[in-house]
Amino acid sequence: MIIGTVTGSVWATRKDEKLNGLKLMVVAVEQKKSVMTSIIAADIVGAGQGDQVIITMGSSARLAVSRETMESKIPVDAAIIGIVDSVES
Amino acid sequence: MIIGTVTGSVWATRKDEKLNGLKLMVVAVEQKKSVMTSIIAADIVGAGQGDQVIITMGSSARLAVSRETMESKIPVDAAIIGIVDSVES
Amino acid sequence: MIIGTVTGSVWATRKDEKLNGLKLMVVAVEQKKSVMTSIIAADIVGAGQGDQVIITMGSSARLAVSRETMESKIPVDAAIIGIVDSVES
Amino acid sequence: MIIGTVTGSVWATRKDEKLNGLKLMVVAVEQKKSVMTSIIAADIVGAGQGDQVIITMGSSARLAVSRETMESKIPVDAAIIGIVDSVES
Amino acid sequence: MIIGTVTGSVWATRKDEKLNGLKLMVVAVEQKKSVMTSIIAADIVGAGQGDQVIITMGSSARLAVSRETMESKIPVDAAIIGIVDSVES
Repeated sequence: MIIGTVTGSVWATRKDEKLNGLKLMVVAVEQKKSVMTSIIAADIVGAGQGDQVIITMGSSARLAVSRETMESKIPVDAAIIGIVDSVES
Repeated sequence: MIIGTVTGSVWATRKDEKLNGLKLMVVAVEQKKSVMTSIIAADIVGAGQGDQVIITMGSSARLAVSRETMESKIPVDAAIIGIVDSVES
Repeated sequence: MIIGTVTGSVWATRKDEKLNGLKLMVVAVEQKKSVMTSIIAADIVGAGQGDQVIITMGSSARLAVSRETMESKIPVDAAIIGIVDSVES
Repeated sequence: MIIGTVTGSVWATRKDEKLNGLKLMVVAVEQKKSVMTSIIAADIVGAGQGDQVIITMGSSARLAVSRETMESKIPVDAAIIGIVDSVES
Repeated sequence: MIIGTVTGSVWATRKDEKLNGLKLMVVAVEQKKSVMTSIIAADIVGAGQGDQVIITMGSSARLAVSRETMESKIPVDAAIIGIVDSVES
């Protein structure tokens, strides 16, 4: 998984019907030391602007969102599966 | 998922038969700050030149296109599943 | 797989219920010569701070954690599956 | 998917038996602006030296090659599934 | 797939039991022009130090190793599936 920060959300009227009702969040993730990139992740834990979140990718993302929405085969490849309280080092 | 911009389309006569009838779009995606790269994605929402689109990758792309075309196991690893109206930050 | 070093752990109260009870470790991995990045991996071998560990990614991570916890479809995409004794060159 | 250029082929006597009879092509792909890298892809459309080709990755590659060769579970993660006629922008 | 060079092997006493008996090799792969990185791959063709090898990643790696060892769901995401004789350009 990776940690990222929610920076916004994406609105799309024309989309795969299986995405209907899903919150698609823009998440900034650190690709390399201070080099940021953005990915779009389906939110299933109620994340908001500025939240530090845990993102899972690939088929695990699809499974998490499909289970949460009780809809099978939702074509996402990234999902927010947790909101970070703290990172202990 | 990632956001990209449709910059063109790919024509290929000699191809896997399962790709027949599919629109294969060239999409510019931001790999890193202002570093662009291009990927090829199957379009299932009617995206056009210059559209900002949502792309899903891996087995989720295959599932979306297979469902849309009612053909199983279409060997794509990237699909356009939405056309962006707006990104709210 | 990749080798990384455990640098900490992540705490998240609001998360996918399937993650309950899982230890989520922060692991520094070398992306390129001396360019480090961090990923979050579910630990199933009892790794601790500073341990050099073996990480598997994607559906193999899900399978390993699901088998270990006897819970199906745990939405992780990275798992610690070994603690390195030594690397022989 | 990605577009690349066939630059050669790989010969390997000692290999997984499931690869027997498969053409393994070396394909140069643009990782970033003018930064090339090479991947090995199984060819199922008769691509040749210098051809510009469409490559699919991951489980979709396995499915395409397994279907084409009527052999199940062929352990490839990249396959050439089309030869580019043209890219229209 | 990608080509890499075997540079060593990894020893881990505390590991997922499914990895028992597997040879885990350290393989240097060219990430970008002369930028090397190391991955760990399960060997199923008897590769040795200095061998140039073909590596498959993701679920295809798991399938190849599971078939070779007749153990299901082995949590690897990279496997050595061939030893390169030559690359013809």
